[in-house]
Formats: sequence, structure tokens, C-alpha cells
Amino acid sequence: MKVAFQGERGAFSEIASKYYFGDSVKLFPSYSFNEVFKKVKTNEVNFGVVPIENTLYGSIFETYDLLLKYSLKIFGELNLQINHHLLAFNSYKINQIKKVFSHPQALGQCSEFLTKLKNAKINPAYDTAGAINFSIEKSTEPTAIIASRKAAELHNLFILKKNIQNNSENFTRFLIVGKKTFNNKIINPKTSICFELKSIPGALFKALSVFALRDIDLVKIESRPIPSRPFQYIFYVDLIGHKNDEKIKLALKHLHEISIKIKLFGTYETGKKYVS
Amino acid sequence: MKVAFQGERGAFSEIASKYYFGDSVKLFPSYSFNEVFKKVKTNEVNFGVVPIENTLYGSIFETYDLLLKYSLKIFGELNLQINHHLLAFNSYKINQIKKVFSHPQALGQCSEFLTKLKNAKINPAYDTAGAINFSIEKSTEPTAIIASRKAAELHNLFILKKNIQNNSENFTRFLIVGKKTFNNKIINPKTSICFELKSIPGALFKALSVFALRDIDLVKIESRPIPSRPFQYIFYVDLIGHKNDEKIKLALKHLHEISIKIKLFGTYETGKKYVS
Repeated sequence: MKVAFQGERGAFSEIASKYYFGDSVKLFPSYSFNEVFKKVKTNEVNFGVVPIENTLYGSIFETYDLLLKYSLKIFGELNLQINHHLLAFNSYKINQIKKVFSHPQALGQCSEFLTKLKNAKINPAYDTAGAINFSIEKSTEPTAIIASRKAAELHNLFILKKNIQNNSENFTRFLIVGKKTFNNKIINPKTSICFELKSIPGALFKALSVFALRDIDLVKIESRPIPSRPFQYIFYVDLIGHKNDEKIKLALKHLHEISIKIKLFGTYETGKKYVS
Repeated sequence: MKVAFQGERGAFSEIASKYYFGDSVKLFPSYSFNEVFKKVKTNEVNFGVVPIENTLYGSIFETYDLLLKYSLKIFGELNLQINHHLLAFNSYKINQIKKVFSHPQALGQCSEFLTKLKNAKINPAYDTAGAINFSIEKSTEPTAIIASRKAAELHNLFILKKNIQNNSENFTRFLIVGKKTFNNKIINPKTSICFELKSIPGALFKALSVFALRDIDLVKIESRPIPSRPFQYIFYVDLIGHKNDEKIKLALKHLHEISIKIKLFGTYETGKKYVS
């Protein structure tokens, strides 16, 4: 089993990949989300593991846009509790730190802790684990990174401070994307779709009514701009149920009446929770 | 009139501020969106001008979150057509460029042009106009920035290539935020609210129905996570109409029945279009 994820070894996406596929999975670290999708599309790997939302940061737009662009299926999902740690190559005291590198989202999730580091300049890096390279380059000054326990293990880093995130209830939901959907029996099925609505009054209300009138629970809605139509949106929706359930089939047929197009990303098992 | 915006002189937010308030406005460039909101809250300025969405990138989450955090009102809005240019201190040929700096969003909006710059390393900066500082620091190599025509004028930069954005239909909608709402008669009024719904089945459908059943047009919906309640959301909605319209007053009363809380950001004139 070959699986691509965005970031370097020790990234939270790697941790998610191993929880889902087990330790024997062959992992392909990738520079960008786009690279992950491309590797799946060109059969370089079987699956990609990508974050779709974080409970503090919100939705990850790029993943939504790439799902549509590459026309991949959602094979599964999982929720990973994110624990951030302040790491360094030396056992510095926290107030010695002059520079901190991490992914902008990790920096945001630790913003309250970072305000206490009065002497430190905060620098965005393209990845939490990738921040280690910056750390090495700039080693003339006491430098730290914010990353996972896994990254500390991999690179023999000192943990200067554990669990520095603003909020312990910090989960990232990851999607497992592939070219096929899950075909076995699914417990707690969830179905993801997106649709572009006709320009009619109350269009979104009418779209949601096709589900509400059939008692289909909607657990997430996201809107993304349509580049060619300023201030018009594509809606992404996650529904509880299987795409082959009679009421979901009927709801999608109904949705077609008011949509320009609909895309079905597939049915998969609702994500379990894991700790990073 | 004192107005704060995020970024440095020449930023698109400065251009938006001058369109809205005129050239005589006293401008306060600010390091972060948070700084802009803070300056308004502490009366250091009368208003802040902040981007809320871009027609290619999508919504700007931080602005949504800060609106709620600082409990400010929306005084007005405008739509600015964004034209990005490749700028440098010397009249380099495009294929000479070794480094490009700009705001990550500007880099994203010019991604197709950037793939043609085979020799250039692409670097995120905290602001389009602020990228100029990087450009000076690293001047040993041919370096360019992506920024506005205004930034080129201000810093006497050469325009190496005009209008390098992927899509010419590239608008940013800016909000004018303050401590009070617009009290004069408003032409084409728009009303912005946010609400947190009770945990009941079909809650979002029911929330939208309070508007749809009264023929109130909803032009934008956005959801943001509630940090203390993983996978629960606050919804932000823009409606066509005035908060004092009888049908909007009744709809909000109806919405209260199914909401934990509702916040009214105010009624303002629907944004006009300007060219940067």
C-alpha cells in the first residue's frame, strides 16, 4: 500500500496515514497538497491523506478545491487530536528562544503561548516538520520549532514545552482520497457531495430542503467561490447516510432539478478519533 | 477621519480605504488584522478597512473571527478589482528573476504565471507591499515582488509584467468596520448577522427557512468552527434588506427561537465596484 501525504516525515498527516493504514504502509512525503492529488491521479500511490478541516482553524480550502479539480473519490476519514510541542536541537530555556518556525496554522493554534515568548521572532514555514530545516540553517541563534511528538522522535529533538496549543480540543479531520470508493459494508456511513446551484431565489434553502424534507442529517456545509462567476459559490455538503439509501438517492434526484451540476465524492465510514 | 488597514503603504487595503473615504483620509498601516480591529476598538482610529472575501481565494476567516471577537459593526463595504503586477528595483528580464516575494494569497492568484518563472524561488511574505523589504534585503540576486500599481508608484519600482493574475475577474470585497452603524438612508441595503444554532435536527435548514419563507434573499453564507465545541459551527449570513424592515425584524425574532445566540453586525450599502 502506497500513500502520499503533504509535508515531511513527522508531519501530522504522516501520523494520520499510519493510524489509517497501519505501520507497514509505504509513505510518500509530498511538497504540496496538489502533489498528493497528482500522485493519486497518476497511480504513483494508491491513496492520499489530506486534512480537510481543523476544529480551531476551520476548513482547508485547498483540499476542497483539489477534490473537485482532480475528481477523486473519498475512501475514508479520521479525526486526529493535534498536540503541538515546542522543540529544539538544544535544551534551551524558553525565554532564550530567538526564533520560532512552524506552519502558519500551527503558529495560529499556539498563538497564546507564543505571545509569552517576548524575545522570539515568529516565522511561517511550509510545514510543521519541515520547519526543522530552517532550524538547522539558522542555528547561530537559539531557534525552536512547533511540531509533533513524532517529529521530536525522528530528529532527536528536545521537547522544551509540551502541549502548547491554545485549546486542547484541537482536532484535524483527514480525508483518505483515492480513485475508488469503499465497497464493503460501511458502519456509520457518511456521504460527501458538492453542487453548483441555478440562479434562482432561495436556491440554497431549496437545496437544503431536499435533505431536510427526507430527514437526512447534514453535518457540514462549506462554500467555495466559482472563479468565473464572482460572488457565486459551489457548496460542499456532508450527509449522514449511504449514497445507495433510497432517501439519499431520491434527495440527489431532487437536487438535480435545481442544480447546474452535482458531484458525488462517495460514501465512507464516519471518522474515528485518534491522539497524535 | 482616521482609518487603519492591514499591510504597508501601497497595499490593496490602502487603495480600498482611499476609494471609500477619499484622498484626505489619515491612514494607519497595521501589522495584522487583529491590530486593525484593536485600533478601532480603542478609538485610535474611526474605522478599519479589512478584506472579507476574494472571488478566487474565498472567505478570509480571520476577518470573520475578529468581527465577532471585537464585537464591531459593519459600516460599509466595497469591491475592488485586484490587478497584480511583477515589480522590481531594476528592469530585469522575467527569466532573470531568481526570487519572488508576495503575500501567499497574491502568489496563489498568480500561480499560473509563476509556473513560467522556471528559475525563481517563490517566497511568502506577510503582505504584498511589505514584500518590498525582502526584496531590498536579498538584492544580491535578481528579486521581484508581486504587488499593486500603487506600490510601484510609491517605491519607484519597475513594472516587469502587468496583470499577472490567473483570472481577470478577481475581486476583493472589503468591509469598513467601526463602532457605529450607518444611520442615514441606505440605498441597496444589506444586513450581516451571525448565529449559533441549537443542536436540533435540520437546524441550518430551519435557520435558512426563517429568511426563505419571508422572501428575504441570502447572498452569502459562511461557517466558522466553535473552538469549545469541535465540529460545531457559527454561521455568518448576509441578507438583502434593512435590519429595520418589518420582514427582517420578524425573521430575526423567528431565528431566536432556534438559536443559542445571534449577533447583528449592522445594515450598510451594498458595495460598489472599483478598479485597483
